[in-house]
Amino acid sequence: MGIRVAVAGASGYAGGEVLRILAGHPEFEIGTLTAGSNAGTELGTHQPHLRSLADRVLEETTPDTLAGHDAVFLALPHGQSGPIAEQLGDDVLVVDCGADFRLRNAADWERFYGSPHAGTWPYGLPELPGQREALAGAGRIAVPGCYPTAVTLALFPAFAAGIVGSDVVVVAASGTSGAGRALKPHLLGSEVMGSVSAYGVGGVHRHTPEMIQNLSAVAGEPVTVSFTPTLAPMSRGILATCTAKAAPGLTAAALRDAYTAAYDGEPFVGLLPEGRWPATSMTLGANTALVQVALDEDAGRVVAVIAIDNLTKGTGGGAVQSANLALGLPEQLGLTTIGVAP
Amino acid sequence: MGIRVAVAGASGYAGGEVLRILAGHPEFEIGTLTAGSNAGTELGTHQPHLRSLADRVLEETTPDTLAGHDAVFLALPHGQSGPIAEQLGDDVLVVDCGADFRLRNAADWERFYGSPHAGTWPYGLPELPGQREALAGAGRIAVPGCYPTAVTLALFPAFAAGIVGSDVVVVAASGTSGAGRALKPHLLGSEVMGSVSAYGVGGVHRHTPEMIQNLSAVAGEPVTVSFTPTLAPMSRGILATCTAKAAPGLTAAALRDAYTAAYDGEPFVGLLPEGRWPATSMTLGANTALVQVALDEDAGRVVAVIAIDNLTKGTGGGAVQSANLALGLPEQLGLTTIGVAP
Amino acid sequence: MGIRVAVAGASGYAGGEVLRILAGHPEFEIGTLTAGSNAGTELGTHQPHLRSLADRVLEETTPDTLAGHDAVFLALPHGQSGPIAEQLGDDVLVVDCGADFRLRNAADWERFYGSPHAGTWPYGLPELPGQREALAGAGRIAVPGCYPTAVTLALFPAFAAGIVGSDVVVVAASGTSGAGRALKPHLLGSEVMGSVSAYGVGGVHRHTPEMIQNLSAVAGEPVTVSFTPTLAPMSRGILATCTAKAAPGLTAAALRDAYTAAYDGEPFVGLLPEGRWPATSMTLGANTALVQVALDEDAGRVVAVIAIDNLTKGTGGGAVQSANLALGLPEQLGLTTIGVAP
Amino acid sequence: MGIRVAVAGASGYAGGEVLRILAGHPEFEIGTLTAGSNAGTELGTHQPHLRSLADRVLEETTPDTLAGHDAVFLALPHGQSGPIAEQLGDDVLVVDCGADFRLRNAADWERFYGSPHAGTWPYGLPELPGQREALAGAGRIAVPGCYPTAVTLALFPAFAAGIVGSDVVVVAASGTSGAGRALKPHLLGSEVMGSVSAYGVGGVHRHTPEMIQNLSAVAGEPVTVSFTPTLAPMSRGILATCTAKAAPGLTAAALRDAYTAAYDGEPFVGLLPEGRWPATSMTLGANTALVQVALDEDAGRVVAVIAIDNLTKGTGGGAVQSANLALGLPEQLGLTTIGVAP
Repeated sequence: MGIRVAVAGASGYAGGEVLRILAGHPEFEIGTLTAGSNAGTELGTHQPHLRSLADRVLEETTPDTLAGHDAVFLALPHGQSGPIAEQLGDDVLVVDCGADFRLRNAADWERFYGSPHAGTWPYGLPELPGQREALAGAGRIAVPGCYPTAVTLALFPAFAAGIVGSDVVVVAASGTSGAGRALKPHLLGSEVMGSVSAYGVGGVHRHTPEMIQNLSAVAGEPVTVSFTPTLAPMSRGILATCTAKAAPGLTAAALRDAYTAAYDGEPFVGLLPEGRWPATSMTLGANTALVQVALDEDAGRVVAVIAIDNLTKGTGGGAVQSANLALGLPEQLGLTTIGVAP
Repeated sequence: MGIRVAVAGASGYAGGEVLRILAGHPEFEIGTLTAGSNAGTELGTHQPHLRSLADRVLEETTPDTLAGHDAVFLALPHGQSGPIAEQLGDDVLVVDCGADFRLRNAADWERFYGSPHAGTWPYGLPELPGQREALAGAGRIAVPGCYPTAVTLALFPAFAAGIVGSDVVVVAASGTSGAGRALKPHLLGSEVMGSVSAYGVGGVHRHTPEMIQNLSAVAGEPVTVSFTPTLAPMSRGILATCTAKAAPGLTAAALRDAYTAAYDGEPFVGLLPEGRWPATSMTLGANTALVQVALDEDAGRVVAVIAIDNLTKGTGGGAVQSANLALGLPEQLGLTTIGVAP
Repeated sequence: MGIRVAVAGASGYAGGEVLRILAGHPEFEIGTLTAGSNAGTELGTHQPHLRSLADRVLEETTPDTLAGHDAVFLALPHGQSGPIAEQLGDDVLVVDCGADFRLRNAADWERFYGSPHAGTWPYGLPELPGQREALAGAGRIAVPGCYPTAVTLALFPAFAAGIVGSDVVVVAASGTSGAGRALKPHLLGSEVMGSVSAYGVGGVHRHTPEMIQNLSAVAGEPVTVSFTPTLAPMSRGILATCTAKAAPGLTAAALRDAYTAAYDGEPFVGLLPEGRWPATSMTLGANTALVQVALDEDAGRVVAVIAIDNLTKGTGGGAVQSANLALGLPEQLGLTTIGVAP
Repeated sequence: MGIRVAVAGASGYAGGEVLRILAGHPEFEIGTLTAGSNAGTELGTHQPHLRSLADRVLEETTPDTLAGHDAVFLALPHGQSGPIAEQLGDDVLVVDCGADFRLRNAADWERFYGSPHAGTWPYGLPELPGQREALAGAGRIAVPGCYPTAVTLALFPAFAAGIVGSDVVVVAASGTSGAGRALKPHLLGSEVMGSVSAYGVGGVHRHTPEMIQNLSAVAGEPVTVSFTPTLAPMSRGILATCTAKAAPGLTAAALRDAYTAAYDGEPFVGLLPEGRWPATSMTLGANTALVQVALDEDAGRVVAVIAIDNLTKGTGGGAVQSANLALGLPEQLGLTTIGVAP
């Protein structure tokens, strides 16, 4: 008998990715799948790539339909996870792929989301110092945002080593699946193909406070982050270019040492060999983050570039990785570091 | 102890896909990897998505480097497989992803390839009638071409049921990985993005006689095939639109019945529910072929549309599927029907 | 004083392309622009590439707002053009980019569109025999569908020369702009990128009777057409592969002669030199159709492949080309044969 | 009689774009076209989109073949322009699309290019203060690099207004045509589609000193620039995200005023209305740069985002714009602000 698991929001991109990974996981048994307006339809009409689950009929997303499972993954619009989780009981592992429980500072939440803060759950980024311990046996997990996953993994080793100062500047390119499956004109194929565009510029993107929270915690002092997201003509992937002021006297060797130390032995984060730079295609469908760093002495800045698959390490894979820890399973179970390319 | 396997041509797209699948297969242990001009370099410089094998150094492709394995997968330019296979011994399973041993008719080979015919090996398309039996315990396997895989699976049920006549017309769109990794101007990203183009028009594509061979064998009489390949702006995937003259009196129900019967229970080929049509994204990275059929009464033609991943079911996945049969393993071992989407 | 022109449906893709061409035309003066639900907004929010018109405010689409112009281009959903045209007066040139007035056979219209037939207007494909004369001085023009434009230009020379028989099979790949700007899930960028899909299979696509009408007229007898459209991951372009049974004894030279004769001197249709095959990128933004032909003797079929930009020669450029003729202007005025590539 | 013009490097992407624009220019008459290894072939085999010039045969690139024209556009690898220009005579306008004559500082040139500095020509960015005057009547023009065009136009108004300090950070996404037509593995379509990658990270990209030169000149003091280029899955376009430290007390209104003042009346650079952000598709094939700015008060940074077509405003269009000024023609002649979209 496997661990019985339900997925809410199974017709969306995040929910579909959670399912894709769960379907190949040896310990999970997939139970109820739910949706919002797509309730009553077959999964195969929305996720035809999930062949073995194509005939499953989506149920309504309610505490009742989700009850009776050992674990529940929520891939819902923000604001919906809290009320459901409350009724699921403490013995059920609830993994929220949404934003509701990521921020510790209620004022940040209210400023960026315009609604009351629901609370804070253990943060599902095991690579952060001390975080594996925090996730072991947890009953609730807040899966990080896709951009904060990339940016935090790209820069925390430098802050942890004390070799960079504040004034972080990040520009990230994301595939369109990061915007979800909502029907918006600017997400039409005709609009996005052949075009890169900017959005959420000037510090207004909701993932900004999460990046600041993570990096400030590691730095031990407030860090500023100028974050600009862009939309690239691809379905999946984030490439984040992250820079910070280099500490005086920093050498390229010391910079590399800091990252080597941070990621030695990490199963899902890899520092590329010198001379190679990340491409999102290296991570497609894999639970990996690939990093490379450089010291620009003229500009006085460290540049870290990272590639992830926004849906895998950035959402569904990261969710299962943390769930493995919470359930006492091997962290790597059901997760691959092998991507699909070209 | 697993089955020890070598891959020749590991720095190319076909070899990379074979490796991607072998890396997740529970029974294979990956031994020597070889390359042509890339010998001496690390696999990670060519296949950075294969994280766990990135440090492997590529050796020269010779019978000596490939000796000492239980199975050898060859992903080489045509003409190179025969001499290597001869020296590998009968107790070694040799799986050739190239064209050398696919055709039974020497004249066809010589006309389309301009070199002497090397011979014919058991044909690695288990879904063809009687072919599973032919592959069980085989020591040599000729993996079908990617286009013939798609076209044969799309049309053989109709020929087997006697509900279509000759005069087959096929137009197929392929992703650029089907053209391999050779440096040719028309394969540059700037050329292929935003553009669909035709090539090999008028019956000159080398996969044409292979399609004719397969369909004629099932039909029990010679079948003509007008085949036009096109290049689409995507890395992977084949969508083949295949039509044939409908037999007099054929009904849509009888057509559907023929396909339902042919593919009922097939693990890797699926007839889509009525009203849904294949898209290559449904099969990305999966060993699946998805088919749909229609009867156009006005035109008097059956239309079958099929999607596969040219590198997976069309090459590396199909190769492993047949190798499983040859080695007495479960046919589905190490192969997934779950694609990566969106 | 230029020819004062209005465009209805200016916020859509077809209307935007008409405007793009009109904006560079030396004889037209752009007057009223209208829209449906986008009325009241600035054109620049929908068509930011049309810089010089970005500040124009879209009005409601009514006979009143469109009155007072010398020419009116309609880029509206089918069914809306007739009532508007009726009130615009006979002295106004009305160019309909929609389907309403393309078909001569009312039964075909009713079968494929499910509504009463509105009538038939002069057909805006000047390259068809006798059609330049029919368009000279016309007060109403039915712009052909994008697929019929491609297919007719690809095959009519062969039918005109009597070198092919019936049983036409066409498979065409279209960019997503051909589906318009409607918000449909399968048109999201995440769905279309990296994927080719089929739709409207089995003779049900609404452009089918228009192809049959055109080719049958040239052939002088009924022609059957099996037409399968596919959606390719690009914004613009159609590549149509069109085959027909070769007449007995047809030679490759005679085939080429037929096309050379048909297109010698045509300003916007070109037969490519032997050995080169069309790619849609060759026609991006240009009012050109590029054709190549081959004789497949084994299959007994002529294969003609054609590339157009579905929005330019397939819609807006073709519309202006016919309008030039109707207004007594030089046919090529304001139209380019130079595409944008790579 | 038009101005007789030759293009060297006509089979490459930059040369092809120069030709595309010249072909639509009312005052230029296209003379000799030259190439390197493609000499002796027809232009149509390399630039099939330039229909009206397809039959032209490419000559060798030598001073002799280029002599006898009023203007010569050079689109050559760096290092080749100087020797040719020397022999062309002072009465011939030479427009160099390469890098050779862009930098004023010989040490910068030698550091980044590893060869002796050839000199400095008038810089072809008319929008820079005083630069129109410098270009009027010039006999030699150094066309700016594509990235420096974007970055300079994005940030110089802020430096000119004294509202930003140093520590510029730029991350730019470019289409693959920016890398030219060279056959390199990472530029294959299979590699670039579906993937964003970084390259030239850490201050080593050759366009970096050109950006520093331009911004420092406007700022009146040395400016540092951390520049990271990335490759996006599209053929054309640059989207550059450019940030600099905001001056104390800067308001959003003052920021906007600076850009409004700088670009009021500029024919080819537009500040977008508030709330709209640039996408490269808005500029495809057009000689336009579209900018938007924001003040991020939390991060203390100004963020300017700009879109251009790297081949048009970034190369061929910018080249013709400057040539118009040098020849005393209207600056806008033969150049469009209307892009091709979607």
